[in-house]
Amino acid sequence: MTAPLSTSASASDLPTVRLMPKANARAIRHGAPWVYANELVTDRRTKKLEPGTLARLEDAERQPLGLVAVNPTSKIIARMLDPDPEAQIDQSWFEAHIARALDLRNRLYDAPYYRLIHAEADGLPGVVIDRFGDTCVVQPNAAWAEALLTPLCAALVAVTGVTNVLKNAGGRTRTLEGLDDVSTVLAGDAPDAALPVPMNGAIYMADLTGGQKTGLFYDQRPNHAFAANLSRGARVLDVFAHVGGFSLAALAAGATSAVAVDGSAPALELAAQGAAEMGVADRFETRQGDAFDTLAALRTEDATFDVVICDPPAFAPSRNALDAGLRAYERIARLAAPLVAENGILVLCSCSHAADLGQFRVASVRGIGRAGRRPILLHTGFAGPDHPQLPQLAESGYLKSLVFRL
Amino acid sequence: MTAPLSTSASASDLPTVRLMPKANARAIRHGAPWVYANELVTDRRTKKLEPGTLARLEDAERQPLGLVAVNPTSKIIARMLDPDPEAQIDQSWFEAHIARALDLRNRLYDAPYYRLIHAEADGLPGVVIDRFGDTCVVQPNAAWAEALLTPLCAALVAVTGVTNVLKNAGGRTRTLEGLDDVSTVLAGDAPDAALPVPMNGAIYMADLTGGQKTGLFYDQRPNHAFAANLSRGARVLDVFAHVGGFSLAALAAGATSAVAVDGSAPALELAAQGAAEMGVADRFETRQGDAFDTLAALRTEDATFDVVICDPPAFAPSRNALDAGLRAYERIARLAAPLVAENGILVLCSCSHAADLGQFRVASVRGIGRAGRRPILLHTGFAGPDHPQLPQLAESGYLKSLVFRL
Repeated sequence: MTAPLSTSASASDLPTVRLMPKANARAIRHGAPWVYANELVTDRRTKKLEPGTLARLEDAERQPLGLVAVNPTSKIIARMLDPDPEAQIDQSWFEAHIARALDLRNRLYDAPYYRLIHAEADGLPGVVIDRFGDTCVVQPNAAWAEALLTPLCAALVAVTGVTNVLKNAGGRTRTLEGLDDVSTVLAGDAPDAALPVPMNGAIYMADLTGGQKTGLFYDQRPNHAFAANLSRGARVLDVFAHVGGFSLAALAAGATSAVAVDGSAPALELAAQGAAEMGVADRFETRQGDAFDTLAALRTEDATFDVVICDPPAFAPSRNALDAGLRAYERIARLAAPLVAENGILVLCSCSHAADLGQFRVASVRGIGRAGRRPILLHTGFAGPDHPQLPQLAESGYLKSLVFRL
Repeated sequence: MTAPLSTSASASDLPTVRLMPKANARAIRHGAPWVYANELVTDRRTKKLEPGTLARLEDAERQPLGLVAVNPTSKIIARMLDPDPEAQIDQSWFEAHIARALDLRNRLYDAPYYRLIHAEADGLPGVVIDRFGDTCVVQPNAAWAEALLTPLCAALVAVTGVTNVLKNAGGRTRTLEGLDDVSTVLAGDAPDAALPVPMNGAIYMADLTGGQKTGLFYDQRPNHAFAANLSRGARVLDVFAHVGGFSLAALAAGATSAVAVDGSAPALELAAQGAAEMGVADRFETRQGDAFDTLAALRTEDATFDVVICDPPAFAPSRNALDAGLRAYERIARLAAPLVAENGILVLCSCSHAADLGQFRVASVRGIGRAGRRPILLHTGFAGPDHPQLPQLAESGYLKSLVFRL
């Protein structure tokens, strides 16, 4: 089934799938992007469809609802691609979506460094595209997009004019979609060194082909900017620093010093390269090691900082991990708070889907309180606007950033 | 009781009030700012205390918890002023709090235009102070602060160096505290004309002594900036424009035109003055009238805009008004969405305490959907960081701003 989809798909020869009578067809007509497995009639024919098969979706009364991509093995059994059931999912269809997304980014940013396609909200379910100047990195995390990668890539080049298109197959959801994890070059060349990425006045080095998750994440951009604005003349500690997201922005904004802590030596090496590119290497220090251990060690050294940031990996990636995750967020807050100078700033971030804003705030405030400090909350931030959301999915906004003064 | 407090209050001659055994003394030790009436032993002596009386608070075991201001007639019967029960609430006590608040604003802003004191979170329960360059406007919305206005004002002048201090007695909660509504000049002079206030590259005219709520609100500053960044080259409609908060920032950022709609002629006159000061009067138009009517009228004129902002007064100021308020937010969204050009921006704001973020978002999305448009959510914003919050009260964050692309 996947082979004939590789250049385009004609609606005339597509299978039809149908909602159960209990399913909320109205929600789908109003833009809900997903059909869950228990909402769809999964007869033997539907069960046999290959992951990523395009199909026409009908409601229980056989009225057309649109064109979907079906994955019979997933809880999200169908993803809406187009409300028009006769839509042709070809290069020009991709071009229209990418052009619309590009128009927004052009309004938001002066330079071509951003998330260009953020999946459902940009009309391409399961597809993420990040742009780094002349190079784009595509994450086709859904089978339908993998099958249509050729017209997608052609459309991307045509609309943006980028030279190089890389495919990153490291997404965790690809397994659920029956896809492999082989990253490749789709157009042009893979960069032979880390690329410099300007953001918030800083320069970040992004290794787009390294295997160590040493790429670059754009989602924290507004939170980097907010913390940097409070970092003029400040001593900054950036824990879980990755390639220096918060610390390099702080140095660009006039921090007197910044210490970046991370478990990954390659990430810290890229952070140091960025600092060198910016000409602030003399104010920048890296410290490789476990974040919890390093926070404890800094405490025994009686170190204090004017601004401390902790931007850990998702401690609560799923419902099952919620309790343990919240305890980890509390612990981070308890270990970090004593390092913050009187009247200093503590920035605590969560990228856990499962922990909502209220739960994360309570855990953070409890940890700060256990350290004997009394915080006030200055700012609550989320992912930047190049990470738009469908309102129907907005509850699951994963990234939260809380800025406290202690 | 209030008279001897007017210069300072000595703890030694203060009354003592005591928590009930069921009250959460631990929360208060950890920074909870309020004691509710059902948590305090309200014997005849406590009931007789004048609103604003300073007192020592003890837990049920007579252990000291701190110094509070008591108002036996309020549901919030005591507000914590200082964890030290022996604290002297005098000019130097006020100076310490104001200096701490000023230090934060100096880190946040280049120019002295901001909310300087945001009540509990800045350590002065019920007190709001806005700064407009050399002039401060104090809102003493609690009886304890009214009684101590002399040392408060002296401290304000000493710490900030401002020349003029005005007292605004228009706050609604003053009645609950048994206070009058007489605004006065506490130091220097009242300005004899509206003051120009620079913010986000725009100039706003603030009438600090006018009776028509034609002052200036700083809380929307980051949301003005976010919308302005999307307004380069755009036609902008600013509904409930007040003195031009969103529209003048948009013009400063390069909007090609802006229309400001408000029911208040004096507010629009100040907006027009601001546009003239900025030299953008040729791109600025005002339209006085009811917002709902004007939105409907613009629809019949087939008007469209690239950016539409609706920043209404609190439609749901209280729990009782929640349902009607949410319907009003939905109606605003439904009337505004058709005026937004394809791929344009719709900014919807709520300053209702009673409507939480999720409720407001659902109402907004429903209204947009009823207009036949499908939004994506680009940004969720709150009040700026010169409006800090105690984390214990953060759920009640009143201001929300949702930025959609349609």
